[in-house]
Amino acid sequence: MSAALHLVAERHAEPVASETEGPPRWYLLLSAASRAHAALSVQTVVQAHGVEIAGLQCYTDPASGWHHCRSEIDDPRSRLSAEDLHRTLAPLAVQAPLRVQVGASHERKRVVVLVSKADHCLRELLQRRHDGELAIDIACVISNHEDLGPLALAHGVPFHHVPMAGSDAGGNGRTSAFERVFELFEQYRGDVMVLARFMQILPPAFCARAAGRILNVHHSLLPAFSGARAYHQAWQQGVKWIGATCHYVTAELDQGPIIDQDARRIDHAQSVDDLVRAGRDLERRVLVAGLRAHVEDRVVVCGQRTVIFDR
Amino acid sequence: MSAALHLVAERHAEPVASETEGPPRWYLLLSAASRAHAALSVQTVVQAHGVEIAGLQCYTDPASGWHHCRSEIDDPRSRLSAEDLHRTLAPLAVQAPLRVQVGASHERKRVVVLVSKADHCLRELLQRRHDGELAIDIACVISNHEDLGPLALAHGVPFHHVPMAGSDAGGNGRTSAFERVFELFEQYRGDVMVLARFMQILPPAFCARAAGRILNVHHSLLPAFSGARAYHQAWQQGVKWIGATCHYVTAELDQGPIIDQDARRIDHAQSVDDLVRAGRDLERRVLVAGLRAHVEDRVVVCGQRTVIFDR
Amino acid sequence: MSAALHLVAERHAEPVASETEGPPRWYLLLSAASRAHAALSVQTVVQAHGVEIAGLQCYTDPASGWHHCRSEIDDPRSRLSAEDLHRTLAPLAVQAPLRVQVGASHERKRVVVLVSKADHCLRELLQRRHDGELAIDIACVISNHEDLGPLALAHGVPFHHVPMAGSDAGGNGRTSAFERVFELFEQYRGDVMVLARFMQILPPAFCARAAGRILNVHHSLLPAFSGARAYHQAWQQGVKWIGATCHYVTAELDQGPIIDQDARRIDHAQSVDDLVRAGRDLERRVLVAGLRAHVEDRVVVCGQRTVIFDR
Amino acid sequence: MSAALHLVAERHAEPVASETEGPPRWYLLLSAASRAHAALSVQTVVQAHGVEIAGLQCYTDPASGWHHCRSEIDDPRSRLSAEDLHRTLAPLAVQAPLRVQVGASHERKRVVVLVSKADHCLRELLQRRHDGELAIDIACVISNHEDLGPLALAHGVPFHHVPMAGSDAGGNGRTSAFERVFELFEQYRGDVMVLARFMQILPPAFCARAAGRILNVHHSLLPAFSGARAYHQAWQQGVKWIGATCHYVTAELDQGPIIDQDARRIDHAQSVDDLVRAGRDLERRVLVAGLRAHVEDRVVVCGQRTVIFDR
Repeated sequence: MSAALHLVAERHAEPVASETEGPPRWYLLLSAASRAHAALSVQTVVQAHGVEIAGLQCYTDPASGWHHCRSEIDDPRSRLSAEDLHRTLAPLAVQAPLRVQVGASHERKRVVVLVSKADHCLRELLQRRHDGELAIDIACVISNHEDLGPLALAHGVPFHHVPMAGSDAGGNGRTSAFERVFELFEQYRGDVMVLARFMQILPPAFCARAAGRILNVHHSLLPAFSGARAYHQAWQQGVKWIGATCHYVTAELDQGPIIDQDARRIDHAQSVDDLVRAGRDLERRVLVAGLRAHVEDRVVVCGQRTVIFDR
Repeated sequence: MSAALHLVAERHAEPVASETEGPPRWYLLLSAASRAHAALSVQTVVQAHGVEIAGLQCYTDPASGWHHCRSEIDDPRSRLSAEDLHRTLAPLAVQAPLRVQVGASHERKRVVVLVSKADHCLRELLQRRHDGELAIDIACVISNHEDLGPLALAHGVPFHHVPMAGSDAGGNGRTSAFERVFELFEQYRGDVMVLARFMQILPPAFCARAAGRILNVHHSLLPAFSGARAYHQAWQQGVKWIGATCHYVTAELDQGPIIDQDARRIDHAQSVDDLVRAGRDLERRVLVAGLRAHVEDRVVVCGQRTVIFDR
Repeated sequence: MSAALHLVAERHAEPVASETEGPPRWYLLLSAASRAHAALSVQTVVQAHGVEIAGLQCYTDPASGWHHCRSEIDDPRSRLSAEDLHRTLAPLAVQAPLRVQVGASHERKRVVVLVSKADHCLRELLQRRHDGELAIDIACVISNHEDLGPLALAHGVPFHHVPMAGSDAGGNGRTSAFERVFELFEQYRGDVMVLARFMQILPPAFCARAAGRILNVHHSLLPAFSGARAYHQAWQQGVKWIGATCHYVTAELDQGPIIDQDARRIDHAQSVDDLVRAGRDLERRVLVAGLRAHVEDRVVVCGQRTVIFDR
Repeated sequence: MSAALHLVAERHAEPVASETEGPPRWYLLLSAASRAHAALSVQTVVQAHGVEIAGLQCYTDPASGWHHCRSEIDDPRSRLSAEDLHRTLAPLAVQAPLRVQVGASHERKRVVVLVSKADHCLRELLQRRHDGELAIDIACVISNHEDLGPLALAHGVPFHHVPMAGSDAGGNGRTSAFERVFELFEQYRGDVMVLARFMQILPPAFCARAAGRILNVHHSLLPAFSGARAYHQAWQQGVKWIGATCHYVTAELDQGPIIDQDARRIDHAQSVDDLVRAGRDLERRVLVAGLRAHVEDRVVVCGQRTVIFDR
């Protein structure tokens, strides 16, 4: 590991075009086994803190009967903290099943990006953040190759090279490499890990440790064409549409809950290389859309499905 | 079979909005093992008949190396027949591998439609034909149920009820039912058979007899979600896009070469019934687009893939 | 007027596929000059009637500063009426500017459809209602031509022929024809009037009387190509996209607030007739989408703009 | 002018991902007053040079009756030159009206890019060229501001700053500035000039000199919202779709023949800034698509309309 390239740049004061304005807005994601309990929870917050509900979206999952709702809470006098909200809701979670997630417009999530050699997804994240279209902090970039180090550094983002044995090699080297990745994730206080065309399969234990906090972008409309050669398979099958998928990573390869997908028409004249090229645009878009939904606390995982609340 | 409902209406003189105008235009689809041979074939037709090439599209399949081209041939003095073209090209097919398909703007294909109970696809075909947007003759409608008889008759199309045992039943009744279907197809001089949400699996022998002449519309973006409950599966997987596929029928269920697909975004709030409803529009569209490509002689099957030439 | 064709069918008990289920849900659209007043209004309803907020969407118009919100209110014990809600909110409307609109999931809006000769939009409304995809009652169809009478009657909808002088004629006959239309609208207790490719210009006084209750579908992406020959203009300009618009009718021709638009790519090879045909699908879609938003109380007009809340 | 910044970098040997492969392919665009004359012209080329037609697309403009066709000509022995083709066709142009345009797969067009301060369109061109998705040479970048110099240079492209008086100022300074632009265009042997969000109005004489060789990207679906504040206008009108247009520049502002357009749905909640951001993606896409059609010799201007042949 000592040979690894670790590039830690002076962090730029990154210009961000559209800073969040106005008073803090809290996002409260509640999942309850009954609808009445969810409603009571929201009401309790309103009364306890004298805040205003600026938006409320609800969804009852027909399969489980669970009720999910996302409320936007304005706090004009800036008196609330996430701890306050959790404390207020704690007794309710004792009474009956209740899952609580709290986010805020003024607290950016810290993103750790894992890449291999392809640069288009990383480039997109850096550019969207720079243009103020994605309110995240990119904490660091980690790669099993050295190629994208200069790109990260050019944007003032620390870069860590963590060499890995091939995905089929396995063994101790591989395990300790992923331990190193997790150390970095914690060291940089990462909130979410993004596999931006990272061409390694994560060990199950790793997936379990960061469950619900790892996003992957896959180059097909899953569940079709999982695995590494999705565009080749799509070409051989002669499909007329290709797609890309942003999903949570679970121990089962390419099977985690889907957050976003995008798709486009193709025709027979397009070669596999053409599909790869056209697909890059789709991959960029679903990654940005999926990550945006996640960092804006608009996603609830509900078994194999996700509820994506509107902005 | 004696109990079957056979409704044969006086055929309307169906008003067709946009009749093909101008002199006859021939469509010549040539597939050759070498490009030079395809070019020679086109040139031979031009010289033998003194006709004009109004359009030419070519595609070389990188997998097989075969060369496919579609030429549009104008015949201002209306002297050509399909037989002339076949006769002119016959010697070339002896010299080297050459597949020839001939169509014409003034010869409508005769379509036999198979349906069960769902009416939206049949309705779409009848409406598009009526509006002059689909240049076909609907020779007859065949169904394993009686429900859609009145709809066919209201549009002046003969209707035949051919009862069938359930798809899992099999047995002689089922075989003879499909023999009856094939008899009707031949009796009505059908060029192409369309399964417009026909909920029966065709026997392999039947598929083989009409290979390349049976189109199906399936309610998913194949190869994902083959089989009967595609929208249920899509809902359970939590996909964010659904689709529909028009494909040629082969003995392998839902695996034949894809002609056209269409797709649309959905969200978590849509129930299975909502997907069924939204999907109907996709099914209508891919069926019309796929059938149009087929009847306009714009499709070449190339292994598992199809080449779809532009209009 | 005595010569006019008035066809009043026995009303079918129209089968509706997806009846609204569950307890009544109220839709409360509030527009207030301040956000605090809107919030107070919602809170007042909750406390006065002990109801549950199932959804809340808010929008502050940056131009006027007005605050619009739509709340969905569940009334599990079915005790509320629209009058109750208006009565509860009346004192608040005295205190400060407040606009209130109340709808309910169990009260279908009554739609009066005006048509000329083109049938595609009317056909779409009848079909969508039949398929349970549009929760409306079609109270009657009125036309300046007799052509679409049989279509309306075949669906059990009363039809009234009201002859009109050409749009350039004007004069008393024209005025009294529109008086007759308004009488019919009131006689049938219409909630909303839909111009479904109705080729007459409404008199300003007529527009004023039914302001906010008349929807038109126009065959372009307004503000481009207003007037009668939109597809011709689009063709001549050589645009690469065409569209359709559903908007509220005001005295200024094709200038009222836009509710919905849809658009699609075209190419040079498409003739004006092709655009007309492709445009029909767009017209159908925007009409259904716009009308659905209106009858579900999801539209707030805000000057020239509309706020369209999500379902 | 002496104060202007002129940055001329050592030109990189720019890596191009997908080099054109195989033998040279010629593109022959012919426009003739009669169809027979166009056909004769193509035939003459085939016979004179013993070449093969690999593709042929034709379009007869119903307004003018002119016949346009694009043929792709394969020259396996690499013996043809553009001059040969022009020489062969010259006698035919004497006999009857005939317009000839010749391009080739192995001759990249040289593009001169004009920019102001916004970087997204220039960045897109540089990136697409780099990724091998756009077969052009970027000869130089010219700007009325200095801001984008470093970006051009970072990609090995010469940059020239040509200061200009504001568009409303006019006067001699402005005229001579555009003379300088034209000099640079000629000095760099530019084939086509691209206004990539260049915020100056070109003088009519300038437009005339480079007629058919200047492409602009405008931030609306023209003819709607011409002029500088297109997104503001769109927002105020409350449209539900926005778009962007790539068109040839003529003396009439934003009125030249449209090459490509793209569009997307928006909603009321998007601010003007949101439209600006969403619009950037549309602008990038139409610029690349329009420029690609132009440099691949697939565009014929036909009055106010363009014929865009397929690839």
